[in-house]
Amino acid sequence: MKVYVVGHMNPDTDSVCSAIVFSYLLNKWKEKDGLIKIDGEAVPVIQGEPNPETKFVLEKFGVEKPEIIEDVEGKTIALVDFSEKAQAPKNIEKAEIIAIVDHHKIGDITTPNPILFVNLPVGCTATVLKKLFDWSGVEIPKELAGLMLASILSDTVIFKSATTTELDKEAAKELAKIAGIENIEEFGIEVKAKLSAVDELSARDIILRDFKDFDMSGNKVGIGQIELVDLKLIEGRKEEILEELKKMKEEGGYHTVALMLTDIIKEGTELLVVTDDASVIEKAFGKKLEGNSVWLEGVMSRKKQVVPPLENAFSS
Amino acid sequence: MKVYVVGHMNPDTDSVCSAIVFSYLLNKWKEKDGLIKIDGEAVPVIQGEPNPETKFVLEKFGVEKPEIIEDVEGKTIALVDFSEKAQAPKNIEKAEIIAIVDHHKIGDITTPNPILFVNLPVGCTATVLKKLFDWSGVEIPKELAGLMLASILSDTVIFKSATTTELDKEAAKELAKIAGIENIEEFGIEVKAKLSAVDELSARDIILRDFKDFDMSGNKVGIGQIELVDLKLIEGRKEEILEELKKMKEEGGYHTVALMLTDIIKEGTELLVVTDDASVIEKAFGKKLEGNSVWLEGVMSRKKQVVPPLENAFSS
Ligand SMILES: [Mn+2]
Ligand SMILES: [Mn+2]
Repeated sequence: MKVYVVGHMNPDTDSVCSAIVFSYLLNKWKEKDGLIKIDGEAVPVIQGEPNPETKFVLEKFGVEKPEIIEDVEGKTIALVDFSEKAQAPKNIEKAEIIAIVDHHKIGDITTPNPILFVNLPVGCTATVLKKLFDWSGVEIPKELAGLMLASILSDTVIFKSATTTELDKEAAKELAKIAGIENIEEFGIEVKAKLSAVDELSARDIILRDFKDFDMSGNKVGIGQIELVDLKLIEGRKEEILEELKKMKEEGGYHTVALMLTDIIKEGTELLVVTDDASVIEKAFGKKLEGNSVWLEGVMSRKKQVVPPLENAFSS
Repeated sequence: MKVYVVGHMNPDTDSVCSAIVFSYLLNKWKEKDGLIKIDGEAVPVIQGEPNPETKFVLEKFGVEKPEIIEDVEGKTIALVDFSEKAQAPKNIEKAEIIAIVDHHKIGDITTPNPILFVNLPVGCTATVLKKLFDWSGVEIPKELAGLMLASILSDTVIFKSATTTELDKEAAKELAKIAGIENIEEFGIEVKAKLSAVDELSARDIILRDFKDFDMSGNKVGIGQIELVDLKLIEGRKEEILEELKKMKEEGGYHTVALMLTDIIKEGTELLVVTDDASVIEKAFGKKLEGNSVWLEGVMSRKKQVVPPLENAFSS
């Protein structure tokens, strides 16, 4: 009986690599003193095609892309990088879950029997897996160390995300040594650059890559975000993007549509805005729009740094 | 801001001792490299008066009984030995949960933020805590090692429960060394004997300590269980208990009322039975009642070894 190790929907680098890495560890635990012992062989699977960043990482370290799985009815499974039913494969309630390794809030998945569930409040599942290797005395192969390092750099935005902890930094340092990566920062930029490749995307694709609607005091507000290693990568596309934002505003009946162009190296965001009332932006961020744009120094997070001040500006 | 560490309702030895032990570890983690860092001081609390076994253990190792807590509204808390809302203190949904350490099935408690959640499929929460001490390089004080050893012996019924793992046995061995306990088995019997003290209990109390009703093919069946280190402890009370079972049968309209007198050392159960149809017992267990009693060699679990054969006997 196989154990399928699977990450969340819309897989990111951490959820794909952690499935590969935890499969390896579960198989090792069959021989050595593991925290749990599985019967069959553990195999990594994914819930969809990997993104360009993940593909680059797998190729760089010569690791095969896992098979795609959609339905887990009747299967024995382990979860990495999520513990919520909403992010699970089809028929998760008809699968037997034997382990969960994660770093998010505790989700709504329950089990009928005791299982291994290790969740730590750190920046990346790979950091938790690094601990599990250490704690059970299993050596990390060079290529898997590479995948884990890339996952940490991806999830923590090269240690710049507010979710980053000392444990992530320590793990990254040790993993880089095993993987033979000399400059961690440089490698991080190389990894993150893969999702910065916007040349082949339409303006609409760029806006919609990560786009969310909000109701702010009765006004429909849409905010997209794209993370880039350098805003120059998108410089020549801004006019085109603004035209598209205007179209979207009319089509969707928005009060405001905005796109965050976040520079993960400079640590700031250029906000492109099309709005019925520019004073809202000034109220929210204490800076005037120049044309349709404003630079927000230090702003990296939509959830924590853009939505709350905007909501306040609308409600006051 | 204090962090209240609390075990489940109807506290057993593991849930009381694990609250004390995890509080100590959380406080140590403030100084050393911990897996999480809390702000205030961690203090153990309990959801009700400890049972005689737990009281004996606390006294033996000179550890103070934790305060009782009923409502956790607005409090910062950590959970040990459970992850289900049904076993939580009042207003758990209005508390901030910062950590869970457990060894049961994964319950329905969710969190809005990432937290430490370490659950292992082992016999006792103290075994998981032993791992957390080892993994973070914190030394276990002698008296806490005693509490942890007692918890393991209590939860695993001196390693006889089906939930016992190699990790529990290893942990117990190392803890016994730290606590200065030479004979683990003997100490286990001493611990378990405290709940075997039936002298001060009425016959009805003995029957009802752990009593459950079942519907078996339309017949009302009640089965109680009491675990004893030696059946001699209850020998002189059997007639009285049988009289009480007869009364309960009439009062409650039962087809069958039974009490399992489980000898945890000999690993078997004397079943006292009052029934409308003795043939059901014979069908279920392949042995005839002698008077109102039958010895079932190797039977320790109501859930796994008594209810299923009885249900089969009723339905066939
Ligand atoms: Mn992740
Ligand atoms: Mn327990």
